[in-house]
Amino acid sequence: MTGGVRERAAAARRAAARLARSTPSERNDVLAEMAEGLRKATSEILEANAVDCAAAAVATTADALSPALLQRLKLERSKLEDLVLGLEQLRVLPDPLGVITLARELDAGLELRRVTCPIGVVGVIFESRPDALVQIAGLCLKSGNAVLLKGGSEAEQSNRVLARVLRAAIEGLGLPGAALQLLEGRAEVAELLQAEADVDLIVPRGSSALVRAIREATSIPVLGHAEGVCHVYVDRRADLAQALAVAVDAKVQYPSACNAVETVLVHAAIAAKFVPALVNVLRAHGVEVRADPRALALVSAGDVVAADGSDWDAEYGEMIVALRIVDDLDAALEHISRHGSRHTEAIVTADRATWERFAAEVDAAGVFWNASTRFADGFRYGFGAELGIATGKLHPRGPVGLEGLVTYKYRLEGNGHRVSDYAGPAARPFSHRDLDH
Amino acid sequence: MTGGVRERAAAARRAAARLARSTPSERNDVLAEMAEGLRKATSEILEANAVDCAAAAVATTADALSPALLQRLKLERSKLEDLVLGLEQLRVLPDPLGVITLARELDAGLELRRVTCPIGVVGVIFESRPDALVQIAGLCLKSGNAVLLKGGSEAEQSNRVLARVLRAAIEGLGLPGAALQLLEGRAEVAELLQAEADVDLIVPRGSSALVRAIREATSIPVLGHAEGVCHVYVDRRADLAQALAVAVDAKVQYPSACNAVETVLVHAAIAAKFVPALVNVLRAHGVEVRADPRALALVSAGDVVAADGSDWDAEYGEMIVALRIVDDLDAALEHISRHGSRHTEAIVTADRATWERFAAEVDAAGVFWNASTRFADGFRYGFGAELGIATGKLHPRGPVGLEGLVTYKYRLEGNGHRVSDYAGPAARPFSHRDLDH
Repeated sequence: MTGGVRERAAAARRAAARLARSTPSERNDVLAEMAEGLRKATSEILEANAVDCAAAAVATTADALSPALLQRLKLERSKLEDLVLGLEQLRVLPDPLGVITLARELDAGLELRRVTCPIGVVGVIFESRPDALVQIAGLCLKSGNAVLLKGGSEAEQSNRVLARVLRAAIEGLGLPGAALQLLEGRAEVAELLQAEADVDLIVPRGSSALVRAIREATSIPVLGHAEGVCHVYVDRRADLAQALAVAVDAKVQYPSACNAVETVLVHAAIAAKFVPALVNVLRAHGVEVRADPRALALVSAGDVVAADGSDWDAEYGEMIVALRIVDDLDAALEHISRHGSRHTEAIVTADRATWERFAAEVDAAGVFWNASTRFADGFRYGFGAELGIATGKLHPRGPVGLEGLVTYKYRLEGNGHRVSDYAGPAARPFSHRDLDH
Repeated sequence: MTGGVRERAAAARRAAARLARSTPSERNDVLAEMAEGLRKATSEILEANAVDCAAAAVATTADALSPALLQRLKLERSKLEDLVLGLEQLRVLPDPLGVITLARELDAGLELRRVTCPIGVVGVIFESRPDALVQIAGLCLKSGNAVLLKGGSEAEQSNRVLARVLRAAIEGLGLPGAALQLLEGRAEVAELLQAEADVDLIVPRGSSALVRAIREATSIPVLGHAEGVCHVYVDRRADLAQALAVAVDAKVQYPSACNAVETVLVHAAIAAKFVPALVNVLRAHGVEVRADPRALALVSAGDVVAADGSDWDAEYGEMIVALRIVDDLDAALEHISRHGSRHTEAIVTADRATWERFAAEVDAAGVFWNASTRFADGFRYGFGAELGIATGKLHPRGPVGLEGLVTYKYRLEGNGHRVSDYAGPAARPFSHRDLDH
């Protein structure tokens, strides 16, 4: 845990080479040891966390954490038990490495396979939740990646104990401890973002401002998303009770999540019936509604606020929702294309053809039919945990679990094969026969 | 073909939305039309190409093209026939879109599928070969992507005719012609690199300098590779005749290719026997050998040149090869880790365990056993054609054919499902049952 970040990243690179040839049972044994280590260190972890929480509670106003952040900082015995359980669930998931995704004979004795392999060295910058450290470490270890972790300074004591326990589990099984390293302080983050020779991927988990600042400061690929402007489109053929349930859940169940809805789009043909009902229920839940002129005309003046142009691009992250009436599916698709952040978009309709067109044309990591945008989550997808949610157009996309943490390499096995035999006038033809895999 | 690049990119975005819901047979019909269109326009294409070639031949010294580039610029009837054949081969390949790579029931009536879909709008900047235009257009159309193409100015007349013919095929089948647009001139490239709202991916095909300049000038993801420093490692347990065949083919068959070998690493235990033989054969092919001191000591002074430190990082692109003796596999892996460009790395050995460790630890898009690095190529892999070779650590990786041109989205189908039912003390459990697909 000493030395400059550059040297530590180089050590992580060497550790990653060792992890790349580890067996599934080696990695699963480490996960079991990690779980056991956390169990044994429960008191020590809770004591360290109590120190962090006490410091956060007496912080000066400028440094003070919000009650929500304080809640996220706090580790309780039950949260720790969930973390242990999470590691054990990860252990029994299928191994994501060595999966053959293409197998092809090129010619007699010359066989090509595309096989999943770790990404290498991952740097993760996360905010106050110390439980995130355990989930990220587990995902990275299971997928054979070395990880450099930088947590929030308010969780410093908790993170130190957690990292020490998890690292001991790695070393206890004869694997290099440099596979899991804790960074501290802004200067170390700055150095991490410059270590492009030895870090393959940066994952910022936190506010849009954090993600944008990191993207600008590094040439290393960054996985994640800055904005989550998600829509629910209520089609003319929607079951209105279903539409109400989905739209309300998508905002109210956890309004600060990136997968919460920000704008509800309503087909004009059902607006007179649906909009007043929606506004009533949202107001009963304490949600402020910002409506376009056509929606405004359908409800009592005091119930909604007039939206301005900036509302269509806003990620409120709180109990506010924008509301707009659209003439048809084309107008809804156009609005989503202009204002959506390619995270998750939902349609409520009873018509399968309308859903199919929405699913095909909407360019987003998640396209949902008659279901709340809040389902866009690694745990709900059955990934066990998630490293983040990716909205980039190249792999990975959506909630990133184990499969998002692996890439592939082409393995070619021959017997002295030369390209020159396959070139020129007497070129030997390729067989290009698919192999069983 | 008019308007600023920003407007044309926006038109490509709209065309991409239409392509995203096109059927496989629509796209395959376009490919057939493209082939037919090229066949009919043969004379016109050859005439336009003759104009380009004549202009290149009389260019002033400063603008003059090398004989190799002139050769690549020239389209002959047989090359055109190959292009037509290539489009027809592409047409019969399996559709890369709509492939389900994960299908999971989350709960009764709530089904999640991960499905391949187009990337969207791709911008490709390529150098003199006009046949590249046809291959790229075919790959993009088959995979449902819109494409903005910028070819070399020396191929301007050829590219105009080719783009017009291919675009007519798209429009002839009722799809938007904006799905294939030709850009011209440096100013348009600069605008393209700024069009991040409507361009999802930039693909530079050309020199390392071109690739690096483009990476620095855009915030759009760039697919490709700047360097191709590939190695052949001859293990102590190599079949020496095989090693000789592989090493020579990897350099001599086409020395300017990115997948040609630059440095041969030889295990010390077989160096005294192998190095003189290798140097003899390479010299017979006219290859200059730059050797480390240990290799120098094994051959006549006049046969090789002393390598300096810069040789290990050089991409010669010509008939030069570096030669180094290493003590063992670890030293070979360390050399490749420090100096390789993560493109393609080969080992020659009779020992499977040594190959397996090499394959696991070497971090490169291709790891080859007893075969020439020159096999790293989309055509040789059976992809029909390639968009480029990617050395990034995220998908795609290696030769990029149709599969590298698609990403996926998560499709979730429910029936009014709300997250609130799956949260809190009475949370309904998820089923997370895998579905057949």
